[in-house]
Amino acid sequence: MHAIGVDIGGTKIAAGVVDEQGTILAQTRRDTSPDDAAGIDRAIADVYTELSASYEVNAIGLAAAGFVSADRSQVLFAPNIAWRDYPLRDNVAALIGPGVTIVVENDANAAGWAEFRFGAARDVDDMLLLTVGTGLGGAIVTNGELVRGAWGVAAEIGHMRVVPGGHYCGCGHEGCWEQYASGSALVRDAQAAAIAQPERAARLLELAGGDAEKIVGPQVTKAAAEGDPLAIDLLAELGRWVGEGAASATALLDPALIVIGGGVAAAGDLLLAPARKAFDEQLSGRGHRPEAEIVTASMGNDAGMVGAADLARL
Amino acid sequence: MHAIGVDIGGTKIAAGVVDEQGTILAQTRRDTSPDDAAGIDRAIADVYTELSASYEVNAIGLAAAGFVSADRSQVLFAPNIAWRDYPLRDNVAALIGPGVTIVVENDANAAGWAEFRFGAARDVDDMLLLTVGTGLGGAIVTNGELVRGAWGVAAEIGHMRVVPGGHYCGCGHEGCWEQYASGSALVRDAQAAAIAQPERAARLLELAGGDAEKIVGPQVTKAAAEGDPLAIDLLAELGRWVGEGAASATALLDPALIVIGGGVAAAGDLLLAPARKAFDEQLSGRGHRPEAEIVTASMGNDAGMVGAADLARL
Amino acid sequence: MHAIGVDIGGTKIAAGVVDEQGTILAQTRRDTSPDDAAGIDRAIADVYTELSASYEVNAIGLAAAGFVSADRSQVLFAPNIAWRDYPLRDNVAALIGPGVTIVVENDANAAGWAEFRFGAARDVDDMLLLTVGTGLGGAIVTNGELVRGAWGVAAEIGHMRVVPGGHYCGCGHEGCWEQYASGSALVRDAQAAAIAQPERAARLLELAGGDAEKIVGPQVTKAAAEGDPLAIDLLAELGRWVGEGAASATALLDPALIVIGGGVAAAGDLLLAPARKAFDEQLSGRGHRPEAEIVTASMGNDAGMVGAADLARL
Amino acid sequence: MHAIGVDIGGTKIAAGVVDEQGTILAQTRRDTSPDDAAGIDRAIADVYTELSASYEVNAIGLAAAGFVSADRSQVLFAPNIAWRDYPLRDNVAALIGPGVTIVVENDANAAGWAEFRFGAARDVDDMLLLTVGTGLGGAIVTNGELVRGAWGVAAEIGHMRVVPGGHYCGCGHEGCWEQYASGSALVRDAQAAAIAQPERAARLLELAGGDAEKIVGPQVTKAAAEGDPLAIDLLAELGRWVGEGAASATALLDPALIVIGGGVAAAGDLLLAPARKAFDEQLSGRGHRPEAEIVTASMGNDAGMVGAADLARL
Repeated sequence: MHAIGVDIGGTKIAAGVVDEQGTILAQTRRDTSPDDAAGIDRAIADVYTELSASYEVNAIGLAAAGFVSADRSQVLFAPNIAWRDYPLRDNVAALIGPGVTIVVENDANAAGWAEFRFGAARDVDDMLLLTVGTGLGGAIVTNGELVRGAWGVAAEIGHMRVVPGGHYCGCGHEGCWEQYASGSALVRDAQAAAIAQPERAARLLELAGGDAEKIVGPQVTKAAAEGDPLAIDLLAELGRWVGEGAASATALLDPALIVIGGGVAAAGDLLLAPARKAFDEQLSGRGHRPEAEIVTASMGNDAGMVGAADLARL
Repeated sequence: MHAIGVDIGGTKIAAGVVDEQGTILAQTRRDTSPDDAAGIDRAIADVYTELSASYEVNAIGLAAAGFVSADRSQVLFAPNIAWRDYPLRDNVAALIGPGVTIVVENDANAAGWAEFRFGAARDVDDMLLLTVGTGLGGAIVTNGELVRGAWGVAAEIGHMRVVPGGHYCGCGHEGCWEQYASGSALVRDAQAAAIAQPERAARLLELAGGDAEKIVGPQVTKAAAEGDPLAIDLLAELGRWVGEGAASATALLDPALIVIGGGVAAAGDLLLAPARKAFDEQLSGRGHRPEAEIVTASMGNDAGMVGAADLARL
Repeated sequence: MHAIGVDIGGTKIAAGVVDEQGTILAQTRRDTSPDDAAGIDRAIADVYTELSASYEVNAIGLAAAGFVSADRSQVLFAPNIAWRDYPLRDNVAALIGPGVTIVVENDANAAGWAEFRFGAARDVDDMLLLTVGTGLGGAIVTNGELVRGAWGVAAEIGHMRVVPGGHYCGCGHEGCWEQYASGSALVRDAQAAAIAQPERAARLLELAGGDAEKIVGPQVTKAAAEGDPLAIDLLAELGRWVGEGAASATALLDPALIVIGGGVAAAGDLLLAPARKAFDEQLSGRGHRPEAEIVTASMGNDAGMVGAADLARL
Repeated sequence: MHAIGVDIGGTKIAAGVVDEQGTILAQTRRDTSPDDAAGIDRAIADVYTELSASYEVNAIGLAAAGFVSADRSQVLFAPNIAWRDYPLRDNVAALIGPGVTIVVENDANAAGWAEFRFGAARDVDDMLLLTVGTGLGGAIVTNGELVRGAWGVAAEIGHMRVVPGGHYCGCGHEGCWEQYASGSALVRDAQAAAIAQPERAARLLELAGGDAEKIVGPQVTKAAAEGDPLAIDLLAELGRWVGEGAASATALLDPALIVIGGGVAAAGDLLLAPARKAFDEQLSGRGHRPEAEIVTASMGNDAGMVGAADLARL
């Protein structure tokens, strides 16, 4: 049976009809405003109307960044959209009428589910997705099931503490993993290196027009691909934190596969090789256990849409 | 249906007939040697013969410290018994004949399962057990299922890294959680305090006959219960690490309940109050989510036996 | 012989005639602009003209925040004033003519020297000043001599690293002591606590008009003095970092006295008691060595002026 | 004028006549027992008698590992010899009679003084010696004077804390620098790597006869010199800690030169190149200040003897 997946971003929603093999049969999108929650409800109803005109669908999965209630009906809190204890499922249901199953999912969970069902992790039962973007998100699958936790907020993996007394995080705590293993961390460290060691950062500064505060992540990846030693060091340091944190998560979860997604994953082996080395060095019980592989995600930007659709169908 | 649970220790095995309510109907034990793996096989067969004479049982659960294979038939590695890729299930089956389901379980997983099914966590679907003993072990239940991982070695929770460059651990790594949240850590810190600040450690030294290296954990608990400020500080520090690490694990798992077992849990609120304070201070997303409770385990030393029996019956 | 001390701030200079007992006989001040270096030169000449009309002086000490050259003639770099390799001594000498010794001193060094000569440390030969203000500065005296270092930039004590991978510092590095032991750290931690635990921060939020980002240091001190548990915890945490870092500095320097100055020192024992406890707990070799005392500074805001005058006279 | 320097070790003393250029004119030695303090007194008197028969000397410097009193007459505490508040100077004076100045010096201070006066640091006024041996010792010279501190126990540099919650140190504290930057740290990490990653440690295990616990420091240096990747990594990690800690010490002391001595310095650039890289990366204020050079010591094993003699002559 077909289902619709909707990826709800800060300023637009993207929706698609997804079949049982995870293939997107049709897509559409709408612009939205993060401050207009009712407008988002309507936009969702609208894309449903459009897509269901051509395809028979009986389920809609809504993927959004934020804490989702355990019964998958509400968004408890979203960092970028004006949702607080917001009954998204029921609001959409009121607009589109009965007969369609609607579920709300955390976007990282939806993306992880897509990798698990149709992507890089389709051959395993236990996997960990790490989405290394502006922040560090993730999803956990154990024994073939998505781990949502008691209140729907599991897999907030970027807030595992990796350094006591470490970098301050927007969540109000210190030393969260995402302060070391994210694009924001990469940029912060690149800018700091440009202040402390401008001669080492000559290439990065050149790419940023001479202004340390203008260095952005893709410039680091570009410089590293050219062979710039500082940029290579910066990605290696980021990769090291990815791998070391993954080893800690593995002590708890024992996944068969660790899937790296998010924008920074575009750095490829400049990131993954140091991540694998650090993971190997830090994995507890190594030699007495098989070891998880670390691979890049394969579903791209559609992962949230595809995963949400599939989870709605279950 | 009744099942037998066997808790296999370094120098003895304890076995019991357990009913479907987790009640132990009969018990027995045998002395064993950690170097005589075949002798352990025979002792297990022997207790089966004894117990099955009076009770009808069709399943045996074998709980042992070590890495257990994902199919629950072998012990891959045990720290205290001469097992390496050891086919424990098949060896015992060969001795007792067909008709009985035999499964091997990690002892902490078995204990966690007992708490989940019959003990402190019987009313929740998602829980984390922390066994604070000589080391730090644990078990994870999500959505009502035990998390075993891809290769059966999940929930090696004591080896999550909490301090980069931290205390050396016997596993060959640095900064493992169990180096901060275990009875061994308590003793190490108490002994160190007695070296660095003997006047503050006067009561502890008195209890240990004047020799810092003879301080043991129960003396710290005793002194703390009497009101000794250093001992209270030491348990509070241990509790702080329990709570801070639990907050990291919660970022991944979102349990409804965190159950504290193991010998050090005997310290009660001297340990749990600082653990709860630290957990509250470190929990990410606090205020936007319900919070796990932290409670002591209720199944005592029989937890491994009861849990192994129940898991064998499933 | 009398000397003039000049304390050069970002927006004004304060000057005084200081006698050999450290007493200020007369004072004056001028408004200045941090972007007008030549204007600061002229203002210095101007206060010299005014003060030397009534008092015979033959030396001028100029105290400024920044790196000062080893020969005490130039400011190599100042964070708040437009000085880069700036020949402050010679510029002022050109304006006031020959016959007067002029020296430039780092302001924290000058303040430390005042405490050493006339203030809290006047009875010892070896001392460490910690100025806990917006940042963390300091001064070192060993065997009765100010430690300036090979290039005049010793005692940049706030940039000793105390946490690998710790808080990012404006200097481009991570984990600098001043990120943990300064008024800025206090404010950052207070604001973070108000985000993560608003109910615990009720009193602080009330003092700040309900806005976590408006919490300032004196509000924390006020709340702590009233008995607010969170504010007391925050100052104790700051004190702990002061004491632990002081223990590290003591491993290198073995001072007889550690003097705490700066605005945060106004918190008194709310800061100093936890600092002393942490210092005692962390001091290496304790029991085999006498221990430094930790006391508050006694020279107040005039310390820089008095110390600069005295150093010019030497 | 000539002076005698005596280097007092655990099981022998080495003595030499040293001229004002730091040249050793004659040497002798005696076996001693660490438990026989009076025997050490007599052995010192004995070497004085022997050496003063051929050379006119009027001063004796005694270098010993331990805390030395500020008046340089007593050993307050020694880790390896049965000295507690021991009046070494007066005991030796009673045996050899009047007319000779006797001073006791900490051995690392004596060695540092030799480097400062005659060795690697003879051209600077401000230097830091780091002795990377079994532990991490050091000496500090500022403005041409040895820093002894208020009670004679300055420059216990190995006990500066570099990792909160870090490796336990024999001093009773956690995270002391010598737990990361010493031969003992190198061996600990090499052994741990051989446990956690035996295949990576194949060459080290081969050199140690297959037993991880038998790996010693010189084997790591040998393997690294051959190009073994793990051994190179281990020395680089040690060098990194040397350089990062040196940057912290430099924030306080601003030396012109950092001199690396001790047995591990034999690794040369395998150690020093990573130390310099880490120092450069961590040095606060870099770009606005000249930077200390990092060089190897040049006085070898005689440094303590030569430095003690020279300090006695002052």
